[in-house]
Amino acid sequence: MTIKVTIWNEGRHEQLHEEVQKIYPDRIDGAIAAGLADPDFEIRRGTLDDPDEGLPDSLLEDTDVLLWWGHMAHDEVSDGLIDRVQQRVLKGMGLVVLHSGHHSKLFRRLMGTNANLSWREMPEGDLERVWVINPSHPIAEGLPPFFEIEASEMYGEPFDIPAPDEIVFLSWYSGGEVFRSGCTFQRGRGKIFYFSPGHETFPIYHNPLVHKVIGNGIRWVKQPHTDGRILANWHRAEPIHKRPD
Amino acid sequence: MTIKVTIWNEGRHEQLHEEVQKIYPDRIDGAIAAGLADPDFEIRRGTLDDPDEGLPDSLLEDTDVLLWWGHMAHDEVSDGLIDRVQQRVLKGMGLVVLHSGHHSKLFRRLMGTNANLSWREMPEGDLERVWVINPSHPIAEGLPPFFEIEASEMYGEPFDIPAPDEIVFLSWYSGGEVFRSGCTFQRGRGKIFYFSPGHETFPIYHNPLVHKVIGNGIRWVKQPHTDGRILANWHRAEPIHKRPD
Amino acid sequence: MTIKVTIWNEGRHEQLHEEVQKIYPDRIDGAIAAGLADPDFEIRRGTLDDPDEGLPDSLLEDTDVLLWWGHMAHDEVSDGLIDRVQQRVLKGMGLVVLHSGHHSKLFRRLMGTNANLSWREMPEGDLERVWVINPSHPIAEGLPPFFEIEASEMYGEPFDIPAPDEIVFLSWYSGGEVFRSGCTFQRGRGKIFYFSPGHETFPIYHNPLVHKVIGNGIRWVKQPHTDGRILANWHRAEPIHKRPD
Amino acid sequence: MTIKVTIWNEGRHEQLHEEVQKIYPDRIDGAIAAGLADPDFEIRRGTLDDPDEGLPDSLLEDTDVLLWWGHMAHDEVSDGLIDRVQQRVLKGMGLVVLHSGHHSKLFRRLMGTNANLSWREMPEGDLERVWVINPSHPIAEGLPPFFEIEASEMYGEPFDIPAPDEIVFLSWYSGGEVFRSGCTFQRGRGKIFYFSPGHETFPIYHNPLVHKVIGNGIRWVKQPHTDGRILANWHRAEPIHKRPD
Repeated sequence: MTIKVTIWNEGRHEQLHEEVQKIYPDRIDGAIAAGLADPDFEIRRGTLDDPDEGLPDSLLEDTDVLLWWGHMAHDEVSDGLIDRVQQRVLKGMGLVVLHSGHHSKLFRRLMGTNANLSWREMPEGDLERVWVINPSHPIAEGLPPFFEIEASEMYGEPFDIPAPDEIVFLSWYSGGEVFRSGCTFQRGRGKIFYFSPGHETFPIYHNPLVHKVIGNGIRWVKQPHTDGRILANWHRAEPIHKRPD
Repeated sequence: MTIKVTIWNEGRHEQLHEEVQKIYPDRIDGAIAAGLADPDFEIRRGTLDDPDEGLPDSLLEDTDVLLWWGHMAHDEVSDGLIDRVQQRVLKGMGLVVLHSGHHSKLFRRLMGTNANLSWREMPEGDLERVWVINPSHPIAEGLPPFFEIEASEMYGEPFDIPAPDEIVFLSWYSGGEVFRSGCTFQRGRGKIFYFSPGHETFPIYHNPLVHKVIGNGIRWVKQPHTDGRILANWHRAEPIHKRPD
Repeated sequence: MTIKVTIWNEGRHEQLHEEVQKIYPDRIDGAIAAGLADPDFEIRRGTLDDPDEGLPDSLLEDTDVLLWWGHMAHDEVSDGLIDRVQQRVLKGMGLVVLHSGHHSKLFRRLMGTNANLSWREMPEGDLERVWVINPSHPIAEGLPPFFEIEASEMYGEPFDIPAPDEIVFLSWYSGGEVFRSGCTFQRGRGKIFYFSPGHETFPIYHNPLVHKVIGNGIRWVKQPHTDGRILANWHRAEPIHKRPD
Repeated sequence: MTIKVTIWNEGRHEQLHEEVQKIYPDRIDGAIAAGLADPDFEIRRGTLDDPDEGLPDSLLEDTDVLLWWGHMAHDEVSDGLIDRVQQRVLKGMGLVVLHSGHHSKLFRRLMGTNANLSWREMPEGDLERVWVINPSHPIAEGLPPFFEIEASEMYGEPFDIPAPDEIVFLSWYSGGEVFRSGCTFQRGRGKIFYFSPGHETFPIYHNPLVHKVIGNGIRWVKQPHTDGRILANWHRAEPIHKRPD
């Protein structure tokens, strides 16, 4: 079964920073798309500077799973787009939020919190070990007990999110921190997967194990069925009988 | 220890509908305040039509626990007030959301969903049985295994909320529905309790067991300690050591 | 992909009680097997009075998903069998526990509680409405918003189980009770689904919607992958580097 | 309000190993008792080699909160004692399980899993950083964002437990692992706190921050009310009315 995947990438670092262009000549969304090459995925791409902020209704309504990468321009995304994406998630569209997308309007909206975290500047990056703590979870399919990212941006606890429905990955950093780096959430009928590795100045989206995680995440957030039973704003119900006498 | 409780009530039905005035001559917030009479609670009241929408900063910042009742004027509450209340909850203020407050901007903001539910119009109300399903939870302290509300507005499943951290009450309706009528959530450092019984045309807020539940809820959402360790937007961390060679 | 399903049924009521024989001439496991007719399922059956208590190692080790129905003879099941089944669940075998199986040694072992509940004798049964509260859950696939069982045995709250990972169904009874009638749990690598409707004196296992739920449950508890990474009693790990100086 | 705390310690290493005697001349339970010195706590101590395995009924029934430390003699604890302690937890006694107690019959019984984990032998120990990931949780009261244990035994993921109700602490090890080192669970009416630091060959139970955590844990698992509404094996309920015609 084909899954219609739309990769939304803010796309600004690639325009502004030469070092990012070198690592991601086809942008971050291009690297992810290349890594996901799979006949099961029909991939479309959009960026903030495309028409309709990269997500016209026609595309959004035709998307089974949306990937979201943003960082420096969170505030430029219109509230109207956030409203539309949120409502589509609530109706069952899958969502994979990547790295600094934790601070996007979209993720904050779906979490109800600020989604803050600890952070450390380290131009050369830090060694991150991603541990699988729920080895039978479909998102961990095919992964070793842990894998390493040689140069990663440290994202540490406390991570200000509601208690996740499931924690799949916990990360360890050489510098002394830990992080819930792979978490799942359900909002309405929509499944959400947050995965933290993925900074723009490191070649993380060229890592085959990161591709594996994202591909597994796409398959997992894709609802196995959508049968149109979407809740109206109010559902009126009739009582089956009068009050007992 | 005194808990500073602010009861925020939209307060419109009491102005507009004679039947509500008869049941709640001192408004819904007045009935709740009377029912909470307890030296532990220092109670303040505000309504949407008061200055600063009833919640000036000076009051909000001095509130340990906020109660929220709204219904017909959700959209008139300013986004600025919702922003301020949300941020105060994230910093640790307790919140008790009552009845139709499920559809308030505030609750939707904190849940990330539309918080829709099933609903049935029945002018005379329906018999609701509120079952305690977690009898050792502090919010259930002093309650019988179940209690009944003779005339209640039916709120039924599916209730479009994220999985609650805890379910304390499940309700049964004579007309054939069930509902997760008492749920807890944590957002940031703030604890939230949602309790569904409480329609404006029924004298539910004169019921001593409802007062008991709300009082227990206030004690439970009140954080036992607040030591000022509030997360900044970004917390900068220093590594304890260099990467291993 | 074929799923190897073993239906284990205590099988005593069918030997002892004429009314049960009339309703289930091929036993409860036979009625369930008939209802599950699907080329995806390879079904095997066993009862307590079969050799090896109906679950020889050769069968258990060849089972992807086990269904468990027991009632009057919970205590006659050997601890050795419970040990073996528990360990197989922890390694990834799916488990569907039905009705009075809530009080089986197996379910209590996996829950860590007594799994008590409220109960009401009512020879003619009570009307049960099974509400879907998580409509996008795979176990709810193809179901209406609720369905009814004309004559059911009342199982009510409080149900003494750990907080389920997910609640799929809530039941309403005409007599005034509610129940978490469809719950999921993970233990080790194994997924567990508990579904309460199913008394031996009512023809519930001839109900096509009950078959639908059980079939969905089987597909859901079946692990999508099992790659042999089973934890030994202790896993010895080597440090990647010495303590920082 | 005085909390009656019983510290149960297997007590074998202290008899057999000189290095342990040196670190804990008054045994592990003695070090914990000394660290808990607080007028709120009435502390009693018991070991496996005391009469009635250190927990006669008279003591168990008079205990509000039980601490459990065991390691080399898990299998020598009688099943009868485990039965009695489990039932008392289900009725509301608080339980704090320490370090290698994760592999005790008692903890496995309450979890339903084997509670295996990764582990590394390192005679000099490893540096452990205990991170607070839920800073407003009562068990984290008064703690810094993280604290360090200079020499600790590594306990790593995957930790084979059911999803905890809450995670309070995550640990980082210099050697490259992470661990859910502070977790809470509810079973029946009983609250459970597991805390992993605490090996017998390191002076961890002389650490004031470890005392602080254990003291906070005791206060948290102590039920705020116990009003005797304990579920019988079966609770018989009467319907409120006949089926609707």
